[in-house]
Amino acid sequence: MKATIYDVAREAGVSIAAVSQVMNGKGKISEERRGEIIKIMERLNYQPSVIASALTGKKTYTLGLLVPDISNPFFAEIARAVEDQGHHMGYSLVICSSDNKDERVERYLNLLQQKSVDAMIIGTGMDNKDMLTPLMERAIPIAMIAREMPDIDVHTVVVDDFVGGALSATHLLDLGHRRMAILAEHSKVSSSRERVRGFKSKLEEAGAQLPENSVRNCHYVVADGKREALELLDQSNPDRPTALFCCNDLLAIGALQAAKQLGLRVPEDLSVIGFDNTILASVTDPPLTTVAQPIEPMGKMVVDLLIQELKKESKAKQRVVMRPELIVRQSTAAPTECD
Amino acid sequence: MKATIYDVAREAGVSIAAVSQVMNGKGKISEERRGEIIKIMERLNYQPSVIASALTGKKTYTLGLLVPDISNPFFAEIARAVEDQGHHMGYSLVICSSDNKDERVERYLNLLQQKSVDAMIIGTGMDNKDMLTPLMERAIPIAMIAREMPDIDVHTVVVDDFVGGALSATHLLDLGHRRMAILAEHSKVSSSRERVRGFKSKLEEAGAQLPENSVRNCHYVVADGKREALELLDQSNPDRPTALFCCNDLLAIGALQAAKQLGLRVPEDLSVIGFDNTILASVTDPPLTTVAQPIEPMGKMVVDLLIQELKKESKAKQRVVMRPELIVRQSTAAPTECD
Repeated sequence: MKATIYDVAREAGVSIAAVSQVMNGKGKISEERRGEIIKIMERLNYQPSVIASALTGKKTYTLGLLVPDISNPFFAEIARAVEDQGHHMGYSLVICSSDNKDERVERYLNLLQQKSVDAMIIGTGMDNKDMLTPLMERAIPIAMIAREMPDIDVHTVVVDDFVGGALSATHLLDLGHRRMAILAEHSKVSSSRERVRGFKSKLEEAGAQLPENSVRNCHYVVADGKREALELLDQSNPDRPTALFCCNDLLAIGALQAAKQLGLRVPEDLSVIGFDNTILASVTDPPLTTVAQPIEPMGKMVVDLLIQELKKESKAKQRVVMRPELIVRQSTAAPTECD
Repeated sequence: MKATIYDVAREAGVSIAAVSQVMNGKGKISEERRGEIIKIMERLNYQPSVIASALTGKKTYTLGLLVPDISNPFFAEIARAVEDQGHHMGYSLVICSSDNKDERVERYLNLLQQKSVDAMIIGTGMDNKDMLTPLMERAIPIAMIAREMPDIDVHTVVVDDFVGGALSATHLLDLGHRRMAILAEHSKVSSSRERVRGFKSKLEEAGAQLPENSVRNCHYVVADGKREALELLDQSNPDRPTALFCCNDLLAIGALQAAKQLGLRVPEDLSVIGFDNTILASVTDPPLTTVAQPIEPMGKMVVDLLIQELKKESKAKQRVVMRPELIVRQSTAAPTECD
């Protein structure tokens, strides 16, 4: 059994508060008594635990990470980047999957506060920003990653989603597409909203327009993308698009599966663009043209910002916007006009 | 500011140990004094934190999960299954990626002990089982998931890897393959060793044999699988295999990429089988025939076993072996004999 603060206190005949004061160099204990207690600590090989430090108001060296779904490869890659930089700086990572549901977000925010995480990284959408108030009142540093909540005063590390949408539109317009549609995520997901806005703005500049009902909000799973794409690509749809812009790679895979089911060839009959450039994008049939987020630098940056705040090196909240990159693979080509 | 145990102790004029005794119903405090302290707790809206409970030797309701790489989709899916069941039972999850390196395993095991995790789930290979001794001495329940260390007395939840290898061999033999090779993981990964053993045993039963140097140990990344597959599939190799059994889906994707680079068609010129049935297997070109692990039931089981042990409901260590299933997609077919 490892020695606890109680063992030290018992052996020294003092309260655990006194032992804690010795550790922290505080309190009104005589130098002589302090020396005796330190000798007892050494003799018992007492190592103050992170837990004990937390109780005395010190750090737990734990970061909380709240994402929609850790089994979504994009967030798994984000988690790995955060984990690596966290461990590099001496912090470990508690991970929670919210499924973008407010009641899960709230439950996990409470849980992570109970665990006394030093700081919180949020990569999930939420409708109700008041859920963050308790953390902010307790001065727990917060950073958003790959998501934004402009109304609240927190660090933010995002890719320029608007530019990502615009790059996708420009690519499709340059290829000659005019009838396009979008598989978006739920409207509460800020990153998805910006991607759609960037895409539409380039279309408007070019005098092209999205037909009515051609921006579909999906849950972020393959099956949802497939279902919406099947509707959009239906033969009876007079505005049947020649290209789909998908707000993440999972939805793009759903689009590929829908095209296959309908006998549409990609890219000859349908172009598909994804977003995120996860490991999935390079293994699909055909490999996906997609917008790459710089995941590793984003994970590193979010940890560094929080640690700077924890160390009181910087108080100013920062919004860091990283540039996305369009990765052209084989899922996009000029449209074949056949109607 | 939330009230701490110190606030309660100060207000009541007692030591924090006394407050702790009141919370735990222990110690030699008079009923009257106890009642007063409880009233102070209520007045200050003091909520004992998980951290405080940990210090007094109680649970932290935290599970540690050590995997090779959280950005590997198989382990991300395992993590999600463990997280869901953990949260269902009131536990949160600290995740660490070991890269299968002993020094990282050791560092994270120490870290997770410092965090006072209640129990530890290990899904990573390790050479040195002595690294687990400190946890076992402190009676921290341990369970292995998707990995085995038969020498030590811990819970284990695995798929029957031997059967998975055997199912793969039978499928390829039935299709008519005789010249085969294996992309395995590092030899310290027990699951991979068993898959290879199961595969070989069926080959031997059928009187087929693997040529020398045809079991390649790879790091568990796509690039490594591709590099080894390029060597195995080299035209100058007289034993060039017509089928590759890959010990995970990432290696199988490497094999697909190597085949593409060499102009070999899958499955006409080369059959490829993966293992794990991650999300990747359904999106490759062609979709992968692979061995499915029941990830969700495995994650649930491993959490349930640990919580039973924590609740002292069961002391016996269990080894739960779940049955794998061969999922036949389009990456396997009869060999085309052309030499």
